[in-house]
Amino acid sequence: MDDANTEILFGIHPLYEALRANRRNIYEVYLAQDKTSARISALAAEAQSRGIPILNLKTSRLEALVKSGAHQGIAAKVSSYPLEPFIDIWQSTAGRKGKPFWLLLDNILDPQNLGAILRTALCVGVDAVVIPKDRSASPTPAVSKASAGALEHIRLTRVTNLVRTLRQLKENGMWIIGLDKKANQSVYTADLTGSIGLLLGGEQKGLRPLVKKHSDFLVSIPQLGPLDSLNASVAGAVVMYEVLRQRRTANS
Amino acid sequence: MDDANTEILFGIHPLYEALRANRRNIYEVYLAQDKTSARISALAAEAQSRGIPILNLKTSRLEALVKSGAHQGIAAKVSSYPLEPFIDIWQSTAGRKGKPFWLLLDNILDPQNLGAILRTALCVGVDAVVIPKDRSASPTPAVSKASAGALEHIRLTRVTNLVRTLRQLKENGMWIIGLDKKANQSVYTADLTGSIGLLLGGEQKGLRPLVKKHSDFLVSIPQLGPLDSLNASVAGAVVMYEVLRQRRTANS
Repeated sequence: MDDANTEILFGIHPLYEALRANRRNIYEVYLAQDKTSARISALAAEAQSRGIPILNLKTSRLEALVKSGAHQGIAAKVSSYPLEPFIDIWQSTAGRKGKPFWLLLDNILDPQNLGAILRTALCVGVDAVVIPKDRSASPTPAVSKASAGALEHIRLTRVTNLVRTLRQLKENGMWIIGLDKKANQSVYTADLTGSIGLLLGGEQKGLRPLVKKHSDFLVSIPQLGPLDSLNASVAGAVVMYEVLRQRRTANS
Repeated sequence: MDDANTEILFGIHPLYEALRANRRNIYEVYLAQDKTSARISALAAEAQSRGIPILNLKTSRLEALVKSGAHQGIAAKVSSYPLEPFIDIWQSTAGRKGKPFWLLLDNILDPQNLGAILRTALCVGVDAVVIPKDRSASPTPAVSKASAGALEHIRLTRVTNLVRTLRQLKENGMWIIGLDKKANQSVYTADLTGSIGLLLGGEQKGLRPLVKKHSDFLVSIPQLGPLDSLNASVAGAVVMYEVLRQRRTANS
């Protein structure tokens, strides 16, 4: 198959979750000859049972293929990441029980931060994640690794114009809540129990002004002490879990 | 001075926060000749105004000194990390206004995770952090970097026997609350408004059984979806911020 439509996924969690999620084609699995372990053997057995060819490579050869030392002894040639069209996610989540909870990311340029945010988003039950085409890290194998494989399960869409997407979501009854460290309102006094699109910015630059302007309201996380700010993925986690907490409290 | 009592701190945030915190002696500042920026010039000017010698080095020489590529063009020879005796922290925080909030770490072996946890701990206003001698990453310059310099401000103590410290804290009226993903009680239904020692384990192994046994109670973070667990520093952040939220709500 055409290499332009494939990528090299690497690491135990990404491979394990890609097999479970079953959203990508897995064409070949590569093992490092001198890096076997019980977990890798189990993964290889599962791949083999699905008829996927297994190749044993020298570690140096695997490293060259992955272009990183973080492969943990396993990699695979897989189909490119299954981004979903915005409209498909909207239609399939709008009808289901419970209020929608979407995550919209602006200026998350660091693959480590994107991966960490997606991992938390999956654990907290976010319905969908929106990234803009030009102000975001892409959903690469490195992001899958940083997300502990969460990328393989999460519903992710990439849009050309984030502001237009915000407008569409608002027209459909969603409240857009932006996290902004300068906001006067604390996340703990905001009502987060409705249909919510949570807008998170990057660690360095935060949200772009035009994007921020399209929030219905802005919230901040209380911070004490001499430091300037929390890590972007930690700040995101604190707010995402506050949404979960408020919804559970409202329903109990 | 004796090199055994010095270390090479590196990166913009660690240097900036070490200068602000003023807890370490700073003997010499090293700049990479080809990596100047406004922030580095401002740091160098501040160091110079305190009479600290500034040396310009080739980047390769700085890299060799730091033993990492993550120096951002600045490093310094500083006195070793100012760990505090347990009893000093206890006495100075026990008397002050507000209930104590301590963090106790077990099995946090990854410097990145330790740094990330310390950064959040400082932002959330934790009074002190306890690490055990043999089951923790050490407060190295790499941890200071990962903490965005929070390590330079936080009050940190290292104890030989974590269980004995837990007993001491309990005898002094502190509730020890362990985070354990198998706990039945949700962090959101637990009362976290008292004098609290929050016990966090590592990403792989969690808390050691003997340590866990000394908790007054265990709490878990609700998790949805297919993934096994949150990142250790994210889980820690969610619980630390829940303590802050409950205390603010209780006081309002």
